[in-house]
Amino acid sequence: RIAMTDNTLQAIYYKRGELSILDQLKLPELSIYIPITTVADAWKAIHTMSIRGAPAIAVCGLLSVAIELYNNKGKFESIDEIKKFIREQLNYLVTARPTAVNMADAARTITNYIESIETEKQIKTIDLYIEHVLEYMETFLKKDIEDNLLIGKHGAEMIKSLSNNDPIKKLSILTHCNTGSLATSGFGTALGVIRQLKQNDHLNLAYFTETRPYNQGSRLTAYELIHDDIPHTMICDSMAGLLMRTRAIHAVVVGADRITANGDTANKIGTYQLAVLAKFHNIPFYIAAPTTSIDFTKQNGDEIVIEERPVNEMTTIKGVSIAAQGVQCWNPAFDITPSELITGIITEYGVFKSNELKEKLLSIMSKQPEGTVG
Amino acid sequence: RIAMTDNTLQAIYYKRGELSILDQLKLPELSIYIPITTVADAWKAIHTMSIRGAPAIAVCGLLSVAIELYNNKGKFESIDEIKKFIREQLNYLVTARPTAVNMADAARTITNYIESIETEKQIKTIDLYIEHVLEYMETFLKKDIEDNLLIGKHGAEMIKSLSNNDPIKKLSILTHCNTGSLATSGFGTALGVIRQLKQNDHLNLAYFTETRPYNQGSRLTAYELIHDDIPHTMICDSMAGLLMRTRAIHAVVVGADRITANGDTANKIGTYQLAVLAKFHNIPFYIAAPTTSIDFTKQNGDEIVIEERPVNEMTTIKGVSIAAQGVQCWNPAFDITPSELITGIITEYGVFKSNELKEKLLSIMSKQPEGTVG
Repeated sequence: RIAMTDNTLQAIYYKRGELSILDQLKLPELSIYIPITTVADAWKAIHTMSIRGAPAIAVCGLLSVAIELYNNKGKFESIDEIKKFIREQLNYLVTARPTAVNMADAARTITNYIESIETEKQIKTIDLYIEHVLEYMETFLKKDIEDNLLIGKHGAEMIKSLSNNDPIKKLSILTHCNTGSLATSGFGTALGVIRQLKQNDHLNLAYFTETRPYNQGSRLTAYELIHDDIPHTMICDSMAGLLMRTRAIHAVVVGADRITANGDTANKIGTYQLAVLAKFHNIPFYIAAPTTSIDFTKQNGDEIVIEERPVNEMTTIKGVSIAAQGVQCWNPAFDITPSELITGIITEYGVFKSNELKEKLLSIMSKQPEGTVG
Repeated sequence: RIAMTDNTLQAIYYKRGELSILDQLKLPELSIYIPITTVADAWKAIHTMSIRGAPAIAVCGLLSVAIELYNNKGKFESIDEIKKFIREQLNYLVTARPTAVNMADAARTITNYIESIETEKQIKTIDLYIEHVLEYMETFLKKDIEDNLLIGKHGAEMIKSLSNNDPIKKLSILTHCNTGSLATSGFGTALGVIRQLKQNDHLNLAYFTETRPYNQGSRLTAYELIHDDIPHTMICDSMAGLLMRTRAIHAVVVGADRITANGDTANKIGTYQLAVLAKFHNIPFYIAAPTTSIDFTKQNGDEIVIEERPVNEMTTIKGVSIAAQGVQCWNPAFDITPSELITGIITEYGVFKSNELKEKLLSIMSKQPEGTVG
C-alpha cells in the first residue's frame, strides 16, 4: 500500500486480494474495520454509509471489483466474460448511492479502459488481462492518496508562506466538516493540509467546527485529530466569529463538493459564512480539493442546485429528540461560496487564485501524458 | 395579572397569594407549572434552572417573598420583624444563582424601600406596611411585562418602517437564542418584537437559530413560537449566511445580556457573527433589551469578561455523547457585538442608535418621576 506517515489514520486498507474499510457508522465510539470480500459487501457499505466521501466511495467500489477478479481469476473462460463481469459489477455499484458522481465517473473510465487494452495493447490471455485491469484499478487508490499528499504539500507551503516563512512561527488553522482520511482514500484534502503543517512542525492548533446538523466535525474530524495526535480545539459553528476576532487564526481551509469553472465552490453548509467572516477579519480563505472536484461544464455556482435534507437530521441526534415537537425547519446540506471570497484553491497541481483556476489548470492538464487517471 | 393577548405564553403566573412558574427543565417535552408557595421553593426553582433569564429570576424571587408575607401576615408582631424577615429572605435568594445580577439589584432596591416607607410615608401598622411592600414587589412583575410590551411596540414599528410602511408587505426576521416569555416575566424582548409584528399582521416568518451548544433556540424559542402559533423556520447556526444570501430577511433582532455605555452588547455566543453577516448582506441588526440591561459603569465591551462554560455542554446532549471521546473544546458562553455593527437598540423608551444611547437615555431618564422602578 501507499506509504504515509505511520500514525496517519487510514479508512481503506488494501493489498492485492484483501480489502477492508473503517466502519464510519460505528465511529467515534468504536473503530472497527469491515472486511470487503465481494462487490456486494462494498455495495452494502456504500449504501448504508459505512463508507462516505465521494473519492472514498469510488475507490472502495473499484477495489471490491478488483478483489473479486483476483480471487476468482481461475473461473473466467474468456476475456469477454471478464469484461461482462466488470461492466455488470460497476453498473450495480453505481446504484448504491446514485448521487455519488465519482463512482459513476470511475465506472465510465474503467469501462473504456477494459475495451482499449485488448485492442491497443494486444493482451490476449486471461491472466495478463486480469493483471492489467487490477493494476489499473489500483492506480485509483494510489492516485487519490498521491493527490492528497500533493494537496497537503502545496497547501502547507502556501499557508506557511503567509508568515513570511518565519521558521519559528506556528500557525493556527480553522477548518469545517470532515475532509480527512475518512472522506478520501487517506490523508485528506483540507485536513491533509493541516496534517502536513503538523508534520512540518508548523502547526500551532487545528480549530474545527462541530458542523451541525450532521456533526461531521465532532464525530469524524475530532476522531481523526485525536487518532493522529494533532493539537486541536473544537468550536460550535456559532463561535467562528468570536474565534476570528479574539484569537490568532492564520487561515481558514475547507474542502469542496464541487468547484465550477469560475471558482465558485459548493461545500458543506456553513462554508459560505466562514468565508464571509474570514473576509471581514482579513483572514485568508482556502479551498483544498483534487482537480476531479472541478466541474468545467458549470460556469458558476448559480448552476448548482442545493440539496435539502430531512428535518429530523436537525431535530434528533442518535434518535434522541433535541427540539420542540412540531418545529418547522430548513435544512440545506450545502452552500455556495462565491469565487471572490476565496483566496486560493489548493489542488494537486498547486495553489491557484480562484479566478485563474480554469485558465491555468487547463493549460497544465493539456500537458499531462495521455492515459493519466483523473 | 397584566393582560396580554390571550394565547401568549407566560412563564410566571401570579395573583396575590398564588405564584406558579413553567418548569423549563421539563420543556419542550412537558408543559408543567410548579406552584411556588415559599421562598425555599423559589430558591430551588432558580438554583436548578426551572426558571432562567435574569429578569424572570428576579421577579420570581421577589414574588416568592410577597407570597410568604401575604400568607403569613397574621404571624408578624412588629414592622421590625417584617423588615428582618424580608432582608433574610432576599439575602438567601441571592445565593440561588450568585451571577444573576438582577436578583441582587432587586434585593438592594427592596431593602432600601422597606426602610424608606416607614419613615417617609409614616406607615405604622403591620397590615398597611405589608400592603405597601406587596404592592411595591408586584410592580416589578408589572414593570417587566410593560417594558417588554413597549419594546415590542417600538421594535415592531421601527422594523415595519423599514418597508416604507407598505401596508401589505410582511417581513421576515431572524433571531437567536431565547428572549421570549421564558426568559422574562412575559412577552419577551427580541421575541416580543416578533410577537408584536405577528399581532400587527406584519410578520411573514420568524427564522431562528437552534443556538448551539445549549439549544435555547430549538428547545425554548421553538416551544414558544409553536405555542403562540407564530409562523417560523428553524435553522442551524451554520445556515445564517446562506439564509441571508438567498432569502429575504428584513432584520435581525436579538436580545442582550449587558449593554455598555458606548452601545457594545454582550449576548449569547453567535450574536457577533450574525451582526457581521447582517452587515455583509446589508440587513439591519437590532438589539432589543430593557434599559435595566444597560451598564453605564462600563465604557465598552472590552470591560466585559466572557464566561467560558464546561466542555460537556458541547459534547453531550441529554447525557448522550455526540462527539469523539477526548476532544478538546472551547466553549465561550457569550460574545461582544461592537456598537458599529448595531443598527439600533430597542428599549422601552424607544429605539436608539447605539452611539446615541447614553446621551439620549440619560436625558430621558433624568425626566422620569422619582421612585420609578428600574
